[in-house]
Amino acid sequence: MRTVEWDYANNRLRLIDQRLLPNEFKNLSYQDYHEVAKAIRDMVVRGAPAIGATAAFGMALAARQSRARDVETLSHDLKNAAEVLKNARPTAVNLSWAVDRMLNVALGHSGSPEIMRDAVLQAAQQLADEDVRINQEMALFGASLIDDGDTVIHHCNTGALATVDWGTALGVIRMAHEQGKRIHVLVDETRPRLQGSRLTAWELEQYGIDYEIITDNAAGYFLRSGQVQKVLFGADRVAANGDVVNKIGTYMLALAAHANKVPVYPVVPLSTIDLATPDGEGIPIEERPPDEVLNLETNGMPVVPAGARARNPAFDITPHHLVTAIVTEVGIIYPPFKRNIRRAVEQVMK
Amino acid sequence: MRTVEWDYANNRLRLIDQRLLPNEFKNLSYQDYHEVAKAIRDMVVRGAPAIGATAAFGMALAARQSRARDVETLSHDLKNAAEVLKNARPTAVNLSWAVDRMLNVALGHSGSPEIMRDAVLQAAQQLADEDVRINQEMALFGASLIDDGDTVIHHCNTGALATVDWGTALGVIRMAHEQGKRIHVLVDETRPRLQGSRLTAWELEQYGIDYEIITDNAAGYFLRSGQVQKVLFGADRVAANGDVVNKIGTYMLALAAHANKVPVYPVVPLSTIDLATPDGEGIPIEERPPDEVLNLETNGMPVVPAGARARNPAFDITPHHLVTAIVTEVGIIYPPFKRNIRRAVEQVMK
Repeated sequence: MRTVEWDYANNRLRLIDQRLLPNEFKNLSYQDYHEVAKAIRDMVVRGAPAIGATAAFGMALAARQSRARDVETLSHDLKNAAEVLKNARPTAVNLSWAVDRMLNVALGHSGSPEIMRDAVLQAAQQLADEDVRINQEMALFGASLIDDGDTVIHHCNTGALATVDWGTALGVIRMAHEQGKRIHVLVDETRPRLQGSRLTAWELEQYGIDYEIITDNAAGYFLRSGQVQKVLFGADRVAANGDVVNKIGTYMLALAAHANKVPVYPVVPLSTIDLATPDGEGIPIEERPPDEVLNLETNGMPVVPAGARARNPAFDITPHHLVTAIVTEVGIIYPPFKRNIRRAVEQVMK
Repeated sequence: MRTVEWDYANNRLRLIDQRLLPNEFKNLSYQDYHEVAKAIRDMVVRGAPAIGATAAFGMALAARQSRARDVETLSHDLKNAAEVLKNARPTAVNLSWAVDRMLNVALGHSGSPEIMRDAVLQAAQQLADEDVRINQEMALFGASLIDDGDTVIHHCNTGALATVDWGTALGVIRMAHEQGKRIHVLVDETRPRLQGSRLTAWELEQYGIDYEIITDNAAGYFLRSGQVQKVLFGADRVAANGDVVNKIGTYMLALAAHANKVPVYPVVPLSTIDLATPDGEGIPIEERPPDEVLNLETNGMPVVPAGARARNPAFDITPHHLVTAIVTEVGIIYPPFKRNIRRAVEQVMK
């Protein structure tokens, strides 16, 4: 079952409600693109590739919702929908990449509104199918970096739940496991939303891959004591110079790996690379509600005093000098990143 | 009210049950040193200086509990009690330092068992009173490093609750605040036991000091974006070369501060410095039960899948090259640490 899927029988978008995992596996259906934008904002669905596919299908819903009887009005409605969907979350580049791709498909069809509606849905389906194929290609390249017996640290969730299916960094781990390599995963719990504990551990249970959960702040201990051979994570955006924007905590993890000479591999589809952004400094970092930091309980009791305040940046920037190599669907990109990223992207554009 | 206090009316040791904060403020009374060892192990009381004072009073209880009618038997009983108390937690050096100090006092009294019992209690009381005085002396030295308007990151809890009263690193913050300096504290929540959210935030509320809680993995974001001027924490043991053993997460915090040229100041009484340990590598790192990592809830629901496994190292080692200076009760110790730490300790011994 896919994380993001079009229901052709009912013309609806189906998503797994990731907020309920690992306690409950529940699907939600969407017919309104405004609700899809809200689902992205509320993190029903998360993970840059999954958000991209969701927004693409959101555009297909917007095309169906529009009552336009001519191509110009439908184009206008789709441009409005594109803004609503892009504004749902500011950091991941896949979101605007996917929305713009749908918009270009629509604007390229001058036939009838019906043809345009079908074209957007077909393009969204194609994007989703591509995502699975691309992940499996990345996984093969990435698995070549994994040695039998490796212990890896993995941050956040980058598995089937973060994509349409299969996964990026977790897809590499899955592929290495399927190739028969013994692999042990130290799962960063990934505060504040605990995507590691909730989602990655849940996925690894399904795949039968050996793992242990650790607090994010313990990664340094395991790296420094020589217990870790590789560090893997995904990304929400990679700048032209190789700076990586990913879930909060990635920067400190990469610093600790680099200080202990452990290789650091972001695993990202080319759609996550943003050549229009020269480096990480200009990328907007989303600050999410303080409640995500404060709402923990143990034994049913809160863990903060009444009236406690918090800051909650959702992402950070890992400068490219901490990155060993970037795994993509066209191969492994090594430094110098500025030159080699541009070459890889241009080769695909040809 | 002190965190660790002898109740002279009932000849009992009184501790604040820190496991219940910030939800409930409850005192517990102890008459049996075995129960005191259990309270240390279960973290009713935590923080290296508070553990030291608790164990000292535990020795006073052991002296009272012993039915010995002669000095030799009482000495024997106290040696046994010393082993039980020292084994409660392996990493903090203050624990064995305090127990050995009580044992030396006892063994130095050749009068009667009653004189020996009184001497141990008096020595424990003296150690507790000293702890408060030493903290205030450290706080004055440390506050000289704080500038008006500083934002500091603080890890774990090092306040009145981690000591007999006043605090070490948090004592510095408190002193700077009392001197009228504006100070903003970014409180590392400090997974897994959340001493930052539970205890440090609670203390800062009492003192009226401005703070925000952050997830431990967000410290890098704030350091890299230039929002932090100082990093402060305590320690459980400092080796002769300046390597610092402290709560898990300290190493990654110090790495991120160092990478961004933000000064790193451990605040430690000399009793935390262990000249017998040449460097951090030989210090035993306690691994605590996995349940401390796994037992979170949100909205009453668990955050890990059934059967999830975890690793839970309680401390890590921050190598001395990441430390800017060490604040002690005899002054601020700068590099080269090996020479200057030895000088500071020897000066006090004279």
